[in-house]
Amino acid sequence: MFINTASHYIPEEIIPNSYFLDKNGMDDESIIRKSGIKNRRRAAANENTNTLAVSAVEAGITNLPYDITEVDLIVGATYTPYDTVGTLAHVVQQKYEIDKAIVFSISSACSSFLNAVEIVEGYFALGKATKAIIVNAEHNWAYNNEDDPIAAHLWGDGASAIFISKERISENDHEILDISTEGHAHIGRGPGGVCLKPTDGGIIMPDGRDVFYNAITYMSEKTDSVLKRNNFGVENLDYLIPHQANIRIINKVAETLSFPIEKVVINMVELGNTGAASSAIGYSQIFHSMKKDELAVITVFGGGYSSGAMLVKA
Amino acid sequence: MFINTASHYIPEEIIPNSYFLDKNGMDDESIIRKSGIKNRRRAAANENTNTLAVSAVEAGITNLPYDITEVDLIVGATYTPYDTVGTLAHVVQQKYEIDKAIVFSISSACSSFLNAVEIVEGYFALGKATKAIIVNAEHNWAYNNEDDPIAAHLWGDGASAIFISKERISENDHEILDISTEGHAHIGRGPGGVCLKPTDGGIIMPDGRDVFYNAITYMSEKTDSVLKRNNFGVENLDYLIPHQANIRIINKVAETLSFPIEKVVINMVELGNTGAASSAIGYSQIFHSMKKDELAVITVFGGGYSSGAMLVKA
Repeated sequence: MFINTASHYIPEEIIPNSYFLDKNGMDDESIIRKSGIKNRRRAAANENTNTLAVSAVEAGITNLPYDITEVDLIVGATYTPYDTVGTLAHVVQQKYEIDKAIVFSISSACSSFLNAVEIVEGYFALGKATKAIIVNAEHNWAYNNEDDPIAAHLWGDGASAIFISKERISENDHEILDISTEGHAHIGRGPGGVCLKPTDGGIIMPDGRDVFYNAITYMSEKTDSVLKRNNFGVENLDYLIPHQANIRIINKVAETLSFPIEKVVINMVELGNTGAASSAIGYSQIFHSMKKDELAVITVFGGGYSSGAMLVKA
Repeated sequence: MFINTASHYIPEEIIPNSYFLDKNGMDDESIIRKSGIKNRRRAAANENTNTLAVSAVEAGITNLPYDITEVDLIVGATYTPYDTVGTLAHVVQQKYEIDKAIVFSISSACSSFLNAVEIVEGYFALGKATKAIIVNAEHNWAYNNEDDPIAAHLWGDGASAIFISKERISENDHEILDISTEGHAHIGRGPGGVCLKPTDGGIIMPDGRDVFYNAITYMSEKTDSVLKRNNFGVENLDYLIPHQANIRIINKVAETLSFPIEKVVINMVELGNTGAASSAIGYSQIFHSMKKDELAVITVFGGGYSSGAMLVKA
């Protein structure tokens, strides 16, 4: 599998930490100390999960080495749906009039991006698809409780689009060397550590501590094992792109792996936790600057619980 | 691929058409004339999409020819999520302490069941899974607008579980001979014919007429093409199990295919439209009575729009 291009979209409006003092009583210094987050984006009134998804795809078209109508598989990923019937994958099909495509959306929360890649891998193996779009979008503000002192300040809106083909299309393609995912809902406080019940209170984090420790454990383990399976060590790794929930989780993953923090892609300081889109936005941010043969691992942990890791070579 | 067993769960409480006269002004005779529905079920106050899913899986365990902990892939499907983070697939993993499984949930609305089967097919082809549970559950009443004269009376709650293995496990297994799915969001009023916007009004049906005609077109076409691809005609078909939205759609599909209506599995008269669960509940209802070598086609149309058909041999 080859990644032909990667793109992302983040809404214009910046919400600084100072926004929350009147809302949930958290000041700038406390938010930074607890999470590392300084700012996050908020979608405009005329934006939603589906428009964010289309904006992310639109941002990728310029660099796409084929016509988007050649795509035959569209997988959306979100835990903050605008419409659970007309999903983000469906609006992408509609927007670009992509005929004869298989279309659906998925969720394993913040680990969805890698589940989506593995699903695409399956369709390619079956010969039922050859070119796929994975579009991850979160409109966290649509479900956020602004006065929640535990989690209100953690979330941000954003979207990403990853274009994947079964065969190499261009010299600039990245190659997916390995991908694996796993559910851990039977571990610790899973699946109740983080919840988004649309009819019952939106996003809450009843057990952030348990999520925190399991995110560190599984993102470290999965990164280590994807490298070992492919006969690499951390010394061979040029970039680590973890799910972007909390700077303390990210620091601890880097420390556990003995991987230099300078080579970790971090966007959560400015974007907050953009959920299923977060690691894919991070990958999109370095996609065009990765040099030939450089290696990146994307690793994720979702609040359900689920985890995964993907090894990519530029 | 082989289906080892199929099960379903429907909540106890029966809501007859007479319930709606005071709500949306629709009387029994009008509801039957327009949709064919007489009753539908409503989940109890302590039930939700995730508990419905577990109840459907629980109902299947007695007939499962292996221990449920051997399952290595759990795919949930719903457009009426209780929790978009701790999804129905995750609660099944937790409930049965299924270690080392890949876990996520999907939606293409009422066509999700067949997308899920195709995704499982992909994981089997990759060698990343050998035994899967597909659990479809809808808690439509959680998102229903009881005073909506167009659609309030159409929905019902219910869930199904389908257990699938890569290799044949027992003599009673059904074999999946073929499966295909397709998105049609760029056709007609897709993806806006039916919507479920959790933060903006729940389920509505802005263009039921367009959904009606496209459901007939695609469920008929997909049934015809899955039979032809496998060198069968409708005369070889023992059961047709369409998505259960409206008796007029089902009658028209049977008529278009010249297939006797007596051989069509219909549960919507008593259960209403149970969404992603509907066709799988229908399949579960006949699973144990299908005779060796009998053929069934399951065909679906989802409001996104998406469609699909699956050919199964007992």
